[in-house]
Amino acid sequence: MAGAKEHVQALLFDVFGTVVDWRGSLIRELTAFGQGRGLEHDWAKFADGWRGLYQPGMDEVRNGKRPFTILDVLHRESLLKMLDTFGIKGLADHEIDHLVTIWHRLDPWPDAVAGLTRLKSRYIIGTLSNGNIGLMARMAKRGGLPWDVILGAEPARAYKPMPEAYRRNAEMLNLEPHQVMLVAAHNSDLAAAAKVGLRTAFVVRPYEHGPGQTIDLAANQPWDVITNSFHGVADAMGCKL
Amino acid sequence: MAGAKEHVQALLFDVFGTVVDWRGSLIRELTAFGQGRGLEHDWAKFADGWRGLYQPGMDEVRNGKRPFTILDVLHRESLLKMLDTFGIKGLADHEIDHLVTIWHRLDPWPDAVAGLTRLKSRYIIGTLSNGNIGLMARMAKRGGLPWDVILGAEPARAYKPMPEAYRRNAEMLNLEPHQVMLVAAHNSDLAAAAKVGLRTAFVVRPYEHGPGQTIDLAANQPWDVITNSFHGVADAMGCKL
Repeated sequence: MAGAKEHVQALLFDVFGTVVDWRGSLIRELTAFGQGRGLEHDWAKFADGWRGLYQPGMDEVRNGKRPFTILDVLHRESLLKMLDTFGIKGLADHEIDHLVTIWHRLDPWPDAVAGLTRLKSRYIIGTLSNGNIGLMARMAKRGGLPWDVILGAEPARAYKPMPEAYRRNAEMLNLEPHQVMLVAAHNSDLAAAAKVGLRTAFVVRPYEHGPGQTIDLAANQPWDVITNSFHGVADAMGCKL
Repeated sequence: MAGAKEHVQALLFDVFGTVVDWRGSLIRELTAFGQGRGLEHDWAKFADGWRGLYQPGMDEVRNGKRPFTILDVLHRESLLKMLDTFGIKGLADHEIDHLVTIWHRLDPWPDAVAGLTRLKSRYIIGTLSNGNIGLMARMAKRGGLPWDVILGAEPARAYKPMPEAYRRNAEMLNLEPHQVMLVAAHNSDLAAAAKVGLRTAFVVRPYEHGPGQTIDLAANQPWDVITNSFHGVADAMGCKL
C-alpha cells in the first residue's frame, strides 16, 4: 500500500451521491406519489430543484444566521418551497412527512453494500454526511449499509465543507486526521477534507445527476485513491475479496 | 405486546455490565499484563478500584467543574491513580495506552450478540453508554456487536443519569422518549430514563460485580420488561428466533 494510506484506520463516506443514488430514488418515489394522487409533473425537475435548495439551506447554518439545524428540518423547508413553485397544494401532514422521508429511503449504488462489507473487515467504516443521524440510521437499515458508526454533521454540529466537520469526526474516533480517509464522489468535498489532513478517495459516480452530468466526471486533484466503485477502494486499501 | 411497548422504534443499551462483562475482561487482561512483566497484584481488587473511580470522574463533568471530557480521558486519569495506589511505577506510554484501551476490548456476555441480532431485525439498536464513540466502535468491531448506531454521552455532551443524556439520544433518532426503550442491568439507570419518558427493560446480570454481587440482583420497579438475557428482551419485543 502507498505511504499516504498506511496509517488509515477508518474510512468515512460522503453519502448522497457517493453511497446512494439520491436522484434516481427521488424520481422513483415522487413519480409513485404523483401517480397515486393524479398529479402530473416533471418529477426529475422537481428532484433537481429540491436538491438545488440543499446548499442554500445549510449556508444559513454555516454562516451563523441560525443555530445548527438538522437536515430533515431543512429538507422540509425546501420541500414546501418546491411544492409552492410547482403549485401543489393541500397535502396532508402525513403526506409531507412521507415526502421528506424519501431521503431516508434512498437506494445504494449497486457496488455499495458489497464494497463496504469488504472494507469493514479491515477498517472502521462510517458516514460523514450532512444528513442527520436519524436519516442515516433508517437509510442504512433499509439498504443494508453495514456501518460501524454513523457520524457526520449532526454530532459535529457543523456542516461540510466547514473544517470542523472533518476534524471533529476524526476526533470522535480518537483518530488524527491522517488516520481517516474520506470517500466521496465530489472533488470539492475531498478538497476540504484534504485541507484538514484527511486522506482521500474519489469514486466517480457519472450518473449522480442523471444522463447529462457535467461535473465530477473525473478527479481534479491527485487523490490518494481514484476509482469508479467501492470495490476499487477496497482493492486499493488491501481488503480481501 | 403490552401497551407500553407498542410505540417503541429503537432500543438503546447501557453497555458496561449490561452488554459486556467489564470486570471479567479487566481481570483477564490485567492478569496477562502482570504476568508478562512479573508484577503480582490482586487484579480483581485493581479492577474494582478502577471502576470505583468511574462515577467520581464523571461527577466533575456533571456538576460543571470541567467541560465535557470523554471517558477514555477519565479512564486514563483514574488508571494513573490506581497505579499509584498499587505502587506500580515506570510504565511506558504505550503500556499506559494498552491498559486504558482494555475498556475497548471487553467481552460481550454470552447471550449479547445473538439477542442483539434478533432485536436488530425489527428495531433500531444502539448504544446509550457513558463510553465515548471511539471506545464503543472498537469494542463493537472486536466483539461483533451489530449496532445500527453508536450514541451515548459523547454525542449528547452529557453523562447519564443527567436527563439530557436520555432526551438528546432520543432526539438524535428523530424519536419521542416513549418511542425509545433503554435496556440496562442497573435499576438507577432505568429510573433516570423512565423519568424522561423512555421505556425500560431490566436484564439482570448477577455476576457483573463478581460472585459476591449484592446490588441489582432484581428489578426494584415494575419495568416494562424484566428478564435475565437479551433473548428475553427479544421475546418480549416480538422478535422472531
